[in-house]
Amino acid sequence: MTSAPLSSDEPVAFRGAFLDFVADPFHQPEDDCVRYLRDGLLVVVDGKIQAFGTYGSLQGAYGELPITDYRDRLIVPGFIDTHIHYPQTEMIAAYGEQLLTWLEQYTFPVESKFADKDYASKIAHIFLDELLRNGTTTALVLATVHPESVDAFLEASEQRGLRMIAGKVMMDRNAPESVRDTAESSYQQTKALIEKWHGRGRLSYAVTPRFAPTSTPQQLAYAGRLLQEFPGVYLHTHLSENENEVAWVQELFPDCAGYLDVYEQAGLVTNRSVFAHGVQLTEEEFNRLAEQGSTIAHCPTSNLFLGSGLFNLVKAKENNIPVGIATDVGGGTGFSLLQTLSEAYKVAQLRQNNLSSFQALFLATLGGAQALHLSDSLGNFGPGKDADFVVLNRQPTPLLKLRNSSDLPTNLQELADQTFALMMLGDDRAVAATYILGKLAHSTDSRL
Amino acid sequence: MTSAPLSSDEPVAFRGAFLDFVADPFHQPEDDCVRYLRDGLLVVVDGKIQAFGTYGSLQGAYGELPITDYRDRLIVPGFIDTHIHYPQTEMIAAYGEQLLTWLEQYTFPVESKFADKDYASKIAHIFLDELLRNGTTTALVLATVHPESVDAFLEASEQRGLRMIAGKVMMDRNAPESVRDTAESSYQQTKALIEKWHGRGRLSYAVTPRFAPTSTPQQLAYAGRLLQEFPGVYLHTHLSENENEVAWVQELFPDCAGYLDVYEQAGLVTNRSVFAHGVQLTEEEFNRLAEQGSTIAHCPTSNLFLGSGLFNLVKAKENNIPVGIATDVGGGTGFSLLQTLSEAYKVAQLRQNNLSSFQALFLATLGGAQALHLSDSLGNFGPGKDADFVVLNRQPTPLLKLRNSSDLPTNLQELADQTFALMMLGDDRAVAATYILGKLAHSTDSRL
Repeated sequence: MTSAPLSSDEPVAFRGAFLDFVADPFHQPEDDCVRYLRDGLLVVVDGKIQAFGTYGSLQGAYGELPITDYRDRLIVPGFIDTHIHYPQTEMIAAYGEQLLTWLEQYTFPVESKFADKDYASKIAHIFLDELLRNGTTTALVLATVHPESVDAFLEASEQRGLRMIAGKVMMDRNAPESVRDTAESSYQQTKALIEKWHGRGRLSYAVTPRFAPTSTPQQLAYAGRLLQEFPGVYLHTHLSENENEVAWVQELFPDCAGYLDVYEQAGLVTNRSVFAHGVQLTEEEFNRLAEQGSTIAHCPTSNLFLGSGLFNLVKAKENNIPVGIATDVGGGTGFSLLQTLSEAYKVAQLRQNNLSSFQALFLATLGGAQALHLSDSLGNFGPGKDADFVVLNRQPTPLLKLRNSSDLPTNLQELADQTFALMMLGDDRAVAATYILGKLAHSTDSRL
Repeated sequence: MTSAPLSSDEPVAFRGAFLDFVADPFHQPEDDCVRYLRDGLLVVVDGKIQAFGTYGSLQGAYGELPITDYRDRLIVPGFIDTHIHYPQTEMIAAYGEQLLTWLEQYTFPVESKFADKDYASKIAHIFLDELLRNGTTTALVLATVHPESVDAFLEASEQRGLRMIAGKVMMDRNAPESVRDTAESSYQQTKALIEKWHGRGRLSYAVTPRFAPTSTPQQLAYAGRLLQEFPGVYLHTHLSENENEVAWVQELFPDCAGYLDVYEQAGLVTNRSVFAHGVQLTEEEFNRLAEQGSTIAHCPTSNLFLGSGLFNLVKAKENNIPVGIATDVGGGTGFSLLQTLSEAYKVAQLRQNNLSSFQALFLATLGGAQALHLSDSLGNFGPGKDADFVVLNRQPTPLLKLRNSSDLPTNLQELADQTFALMMLGDDRAVAATYILGKLAHSTDSRL
């Protein structure tokens, strides 16, 4: 665990191969979306991107700066995980259940420990270490029902200068008392946390009712009220993950016309709302999400591990619904968004669809930034944005040494092939270094 | 690449925690199947297990032997991969296609290189290095259509003292000329290879028509004739992987009553036959396989990567069909059987079934040995068997350090939990060392 200052003091530059996106490869030809500089230069001043272009074009203006040489590496924007539970870090890979029994047997007992702020802080730092080791620089994070768990997480994030979004879980029924609040207390606690944290440095707040079954209509109404009172905050919850869950929601809310409608009636379906999963969405619900501009966090590893089903990514993108990729740890089985993209590919294949490596990497970078309304400051190497980025080693294992040429790709086809191999065969070992605001936050690169 | 002598010269012993199976946990209570010695001793003489028991019980008789101390490790029998293509090592993770186009676009061009024996030898050694790095000590392996590719692979296996089964692909239609033989030449070449390799040291031969669509009825009949002429050899092929493939087989063999029947009419469905995949099998085909005692190689990673579908493991085991686990590299996306078991768990979950960690590890050890009729010499630590084993590190990554206690499990429930985490979160890094006939063949253990 290390703490990084908020910004670089002296201008610095990074030389290497750079890959980022300037448009959405689900909607436009990939050639128009992918920006690949085989020998590029990224200039960072005070944690922000001052200039970005080919080394040749920028050498004159910036050649005198101290340059970190990553010429055999591939540098991409920091990965964005749009749905993850930090308190579930220690219970990852819990055996044998599907969603509802998994929550009862494993999740609630572990989450009850987070009333203890010291414990929460300890796990928060382990969690952030894991994110950085895997190249994830921003995440939309659920804490637990305890306000202390939010304080612990956002303090840890602030110490490291990370751009993070988090919220206290609101949960006032169908859960043990140790992880339950009340409609009224959840409102008061969330309000106080928003006032304390939202917009402080790089941090933002998400109003976070866990999911419809563990909130009374009163609590959901309070959540809606908070969105009205604090227009900049996010709404973050789960939606239509598992068949039994959907059926249970219908029982619990007999007057609602389906799962999404429960949230809609409470005023929770907005263009700042992020819904995790959406595996069981109906045609009409896809349309409603599109109309409201809400985001879906696609969690393929979790959907496979918990047997929830196969998300229809193609339909979501065809409907212009913003989609981010997400590990959903602890339902997901790892922190690596590269490995998560590999599972997203497999889910697409089982649906007889394709997912190209550029589409996949878009989801983990600019797509995630757009889905979270952060593309002004994150998602690619556009000047003025925050210098959060990842240095990828294309040959971190013997198998990838065989599969990927040591030569940098010379065209987009080779680049697609190498990045596909990295996504299918790579893991945390492919992340040679992670930079936050231009400062080294994680490195396995022995050359540094 | 290292070459190991065929056997140990001096008696040696290994002390550590040992896990193996003495019966099938799909059919009997797990308590009756799992053998766990928290402080065990394995005594190896001339590459074979001389004695196995608790350290306390064997200390008197063997305490004077040189003992390799693995007391914080978990030692399991070597993993058995029941279906893998060594020539596809370099084309692993090829993008974007399902089975039939994937074969055409990627596989056949790569396999054509294996007419060159030097090239084949080079890849064979890389492949064997990968197997050992991942704890796989025995595999049922497809070469290419070229006899040289079999020689190269079995020579490399022999040098390292490995128990391997391999065969030349027979393929006389629906493939480019560079990877095609004829019915007659495939018979002659296979016959010569059987005579050269089958039963030589630890090596066995598998008659290997690739799959029904690339063999004429004449070639399949020749394959059946070889099984008659050489009763000890295996039959190894693909079966009912993908919906389009099944439909194509029905077109190509209009007189057959389904995919399996094509093989049955040629005399290829026996108790020494191993069929990879079986994703699309009908009820009747499951019954026929059970009657004949044939084996299915379950390839979950490949079935997800190529979008083939979800194998019904429960039905196969209910029918008493022997099942092995398999990576199916290059359709599979890695050499790790631990990671493959993780994908098997996910496939089971999507089918609303469970797969316990003991059932999973059984598939990779004793289950695989039984499926390949090798349980006389492999699969567990029974005295007299070959000393091929794997030393597992239960905490190879920061996440597994958090998830798994550093204390060895004290009961089967803790053992199940730790091994489940290892299977869901582990990879080659969990393999601290691999032993072949009691000799170190791979190690990442800095203590040695």
